[in-house]
Amino acid sequence: MSSSNPASNINASTQFLQTKKETYAYRRFGMGSGLPLLCLQHFTGTLDNWDPAVADPLASGREVILFESAGLGRSSGKVPQTVAGMAAHALAFMDGLGLKVCDVLGFSLGGMVAQQMAADRPSVFRRLILVATAPRGGEDIMHLEKPSLAKYLGDPKLQGYTVLQKLFFAPTPSSQSAGEAFIGRLVQRKDDREPISGPEIAQAQMAAFREWDQITGERFLVLKDIRQPILVVNGVHDEMIPVRNSYWLSENLPNAVLLTYPDSGHGSLFQFHESFTRQAGAFLTSDSACAPY
Amino acid sequence: MSSSNPASNINASTQFLQTKKETYAYRRFGMGSGLPLLCLQHFTGTLDNWDPAVADPLASGREVILFESAGLGRSSGKVPQTVAGMAAHALAFMDGLGLKVCDVLGFSLGGMVAQQMAADRPSVFRRLILVATAPRGGEDIMHLEKPSLAKYLGDPKLQGYTVLQKLFFAPTPSSQSAGEAFIGRLVQRKDDREPISGPEIAQAQMAAFREWDQITGERFLVLKDIRQPILVVNGVHDEMIPVRNSYWLSENLPNAVLLTYPDSGHGSLFQFHESFTRQAGAFLTSDSACAPY
Repeated sequence: MSSSNPASNINASTQFLQTKKETYAYRRFGMGSGLPLLCLQHFTGTLDNWDPAVADPLASGREVILFESAGLGRSSGKVPQTVAGMAAHALAFMDGLGLKVCDVLGFSLGGMVAQQMAADRPSVFRRLILVATAPRGGEDIMHLEKPSLAKYLGDPKLQGYTVLQKLFFAPTPSSQSAGEAFIGRLVQRKDDREPISGPEIAQAQMAAFREWDQITGERFLVLKDIRQPILVVNGVHDEMIPVRNSYWLSENLPNAVLLTYPDSGHGSLFQFHESFTRQAGAFLTSDSACAPY
Repeated sequence: MSSSNPASNINASTQFLQTKKETYAYRRFGMGSGLPLLCLQHFTGTLDNWDPAVADPLASGREVILFESAGLGRSSGKVPQTVAGMAAHALAFMDGLGLKVCDVLGFSLGGMVAQQMAADRPSVFRRLILVATAPRGGEDIMHLEKPSLAKYLGDPKLQGYTVLQKLFFAPTPSSQSAGEAFIGRLVQRKDDREPISGPEIAQAQMAAFREWDQITGERFLVLKDIRQPILVVNGVHDEMIPVRNSYWLSENLPNAVLLTYPDSGHGSLFQFHESFTRQAGAFLTSDSACAPY
């Protein structure tokens, strides 16, 4: 495997951590004075779905730790059917690494896991970046059966990464072109790749979305207790988890800045990777108790 | 008058420009390689209402031009009862200065004037910053009679700048403390101040808000033609022009980034002046055709 740039998700080795719960696959690269950044992945995504154009620049200034939850890729175990179950795996992973506190980038499903971890163990995160995600009790979360998504998932001409391009990017030439570039970056990693997620993984994660949909107690009240500085990010044309979920996050989290991108959908961080990594880097570099950076 | 720092709204001289329409008061300070930044003011605000903590840092890198529209402060004429009328004055001012293109910071009412100018003369702006404002046909725009605002406006114990502090900042100790600091900065300018706006000015500007409320044609369609890179900013607890108006702007303008601040209201740019001027500066410095910066 090429080692021309070891601080890249194109060629960082996959490592394995044995814990009391499961053995987790992960990658860890980069360095700097910042706290490590734990990266929590989207629906069916593996370590290979982290765009190097996002992960690599963030690894300049801090270690980036890509985590593969139970039942995905080469991590052992079964995919939990609740976000809380996934959060328990991520916490076990951190305990196994001996990491008491870090920053986190949670994308989509990963953003829900990050919120749950922050609720379950407030000391675990210093700063959170929540991209294209939703609070518990949000709305229209990952309804793959709705026409705007089903038309791509049911199209026999679209397969694998091509579906991802349609789902993650807006239906404009500029966004689709950014999607094509994104796919091009994902396939740059040639060796040591993870197995692709099958239908069992998708079903368990969909069950977790349906459970996360439920409003328990006063809607959004749990967000009031997540007091860390938070950066919420989304594309305004996200069809998978619409941007109003990000509005609710930033209105109800007491200490959150919201950043939205035009002409983009669920994958706005990949489409505008230069802006996103600049903004995320500035946010993570700040040591203010307030989110604005 | 002190001239210790001429690039400051604390001591920049008020100048006067005679045009075919009116004679306008303005201030112009700062320098750098950037395009001049035209600053358009809020309801009843004069040149003296521009917080030096916002205007001064922006004047490092470009000229800042604070504009006093017709009928306000020492500008001649009457306050128009429509945003379109105000836009015509700002365009006449730019013509009088011989300024063919600039950047703009429109705050509240000023953000509406900026949108109207961009619609009327698309070549006039390179980049726009729209803070705490609303699109034509927005909702709950400056309804001073609603209880959350009327309780301050009708309180005999609150006068002058103290009312502004209550109206522009959120009802939390941290936001009110930022409001107090803001007021402290506004009174730093001792000489060459503008007359304070009276009820006739307020009435004319309120009429303009009521006209701007109206939906004409397809709602928000006019925004599709404002194709410049735009930065939309608001506090999530803005009671004067609620943040959903900023959501509509960023969802319907084709090329706009949205930034929202926590724990803040209408005056979020003053509360988080360090973050705001850093973000605005980075946005203005970019020469990308895309808004993300």
